[in-house]
Amino acid sequence: MKLFKKIAIIGVGLIGGSLGLAIKKKQLADTVIGIGHRQASIDQALRRGAIDQGCLDIEAAQGAGLLILATPVDKILGLIPRLFKIVSSECMVIDVGSTKSEIVKAAEKSGLTFIGCHPLAGMEKRGVAYAKDDIFENSLCLVVAPMKAKRTDIERVREFWKKLGAKTEVMDACMHDRILSFVSHLPHVVAYSLMDCIKPSYLKFAASGLKDTTRIGLSDPLLWRDIFLTNRKELLTSIKDFKASLNRVELLIRNNQSKALAAYLSKSRNKRNAIAH
Amino acid sequence: MKLFKKIAIIGVGLIGGSLGLAIKKKQLADTVIGIGHRQASIDQALRRGAIDQGCLDIEAAQGAGLLILATPVDKILGLIPRLFKIVSSECMVIDVGSTKSEIVKAAEKSGLTFIGCHPLAGMEKRGVAYAKDDIFENSLCLVVAPMKAKRTDIERVREFWKKLGAKTEVMDACMHDRILSFVSHLPHVVAYSLMDCIKPSYLKFAASGLKDTTRIGLSDPLLWRDIFLTNRKELLTSIKDFKASLNRVELLIRNNQSKALAAYLSKSRNKRNAIAH
Repeated sequence: MKLFKKIAIIGVGLIGGSLGLAIKKKQLADTVIGIGHRQASIDQALRRGAIDQGCLDIEAAQGAGLLILATPVDKILGLIPRLFKIVSSECMVIDVGSTKSEIVKAAEKSGLTFIGCHPLAGMEKRGVAYAKDDIFENSLCLVVAPMKAKRTDIERVREFWKKLGAKTEVMDACMHDRILSFVSHLPHVVAYSLMDCIKPSYLKFAASGLKDTTRIGLSDPLLWRDIFLTNRKELLTSIKDFKASLNRVELLIRNNQSKALAAYLSKSRNKRNAIAH
Repeated sequence: MKLFKKIAIIGVGLIGGSLGLAIKKKQLADTVIGIGHRQASIDQALRRGAIDQGCLDIEAAQGAGLLILATPVDKILGLIPRLFKIVSSECMVIDVGSTKSEIVKAAEKSGLTFIGCHPLAGMEKRGVAYAKDDIFENSLCLVVAPMKAKRTDIERVREFWKKLGAKTEVMDACMHDRILSFVSHLPHVVAYSLMDCIKPSYLKFAASGLKDTTRIGLSDPLLWRDIFLTNRKELLTSIKDFKASLNRVELLIRNNQSKALAAYLSKSRNKRNAIAH
């Protein structure tokens, strides 16, 4: 069943490209238009079959029933005020950005029919070359609607993600940004900081432990800079809480508190065990 | 070529079991004796073909040309003083513990012919069920000899690891413990602390980033407690350095220093890029 006649995707990278591939595989639209700022990415997305047509101009979004903003957060913030002139209120606009408070605030001002989305299905790689049509299967997509959003619009967006194989959970922007600051943004800060403190000459002794722990430190620095800065307040709170946890374990080590240290580590291990490996 | 007539392995878990499998595959000994404190582990090691004979008593190490201590660090420290009555100075004793200063100190006191080893080839799982005959292929084994060790003994041990497919690097105990505190022990402390600070209700929103970053938090708490406590001094230094790195990035985020933050993240990403993914 076609959900939309025309879907436009601004940003044909890993997520935008994967969305194009998945939309076409599931036949959710007649046409998928890809809009990017580099012709090379557009060409690659066309070759991969992620989009039917490509364009460098956001005007190409005109007439779309669904417009997906799949660019980094700061670009989404720059795009939102410019879209009102291009798409009608009939057009459902969604994004896939990693932080939500600033984006939803901008969308509320813009007059667009907007629902924020955050599919928890990224990875440290970027670019349409790594796009796959199944990355949303069995994933979770967080749906963040502005206060004035219509329930029917929220349901339509949830239906869209469901068709792509994702479960959805609706929450407000504030809760989204708080949760993500802990489960995503803080681990990135920690991975980058860990790499920062290790002498380059020690790196050849790195085994799988350090590699796993810092794998997300391979992520795009500019993308993550913008995520950190658009979620500053919550992120600073999560860093504060992390430091308290770190200080506690440090003190147990310093004081040789064998029993309490074992209890701390066991508790953490059990929490980790509760999430899939 | 048989390097030894009889090899005894105390501790037939992941590493001990993998050593047994690899030794037998490469035919480095006539007989491999497994010594453990639980009959179930011994039986499982026998079934897996990791050892030829199993025993609950360390007396079974008598007559071995090579004795491998493949137990957790604190057990190795308990074993060393007891071994002199069992094995002759003809017997080469090696361990596979994760910290070295305390072990080498104990070995120097013991009168054993001892060379410390640390194969960088573990994982968060434990038990002989996960043992594999190829985990040392293309890995790195750190070789840590007491001051009085003979060069011929060091070379014999290096030859042993080379036959198992591992490269070796010789260093002193102090340098070993310093390097490992950064590339292995600190990442474990960080992974356990990260899990500690995250609310249980947030865990269902964990995507691959948090999973990777905290995977080593699945490691055995008692094993790691002993690693932390036997490398306290160096670990506390690495925690201090990590906190300084964390404080720096925190300040950049707090002060909205977009450019400097991007530079910090890029530098970390480039360092991470230098180690295999």
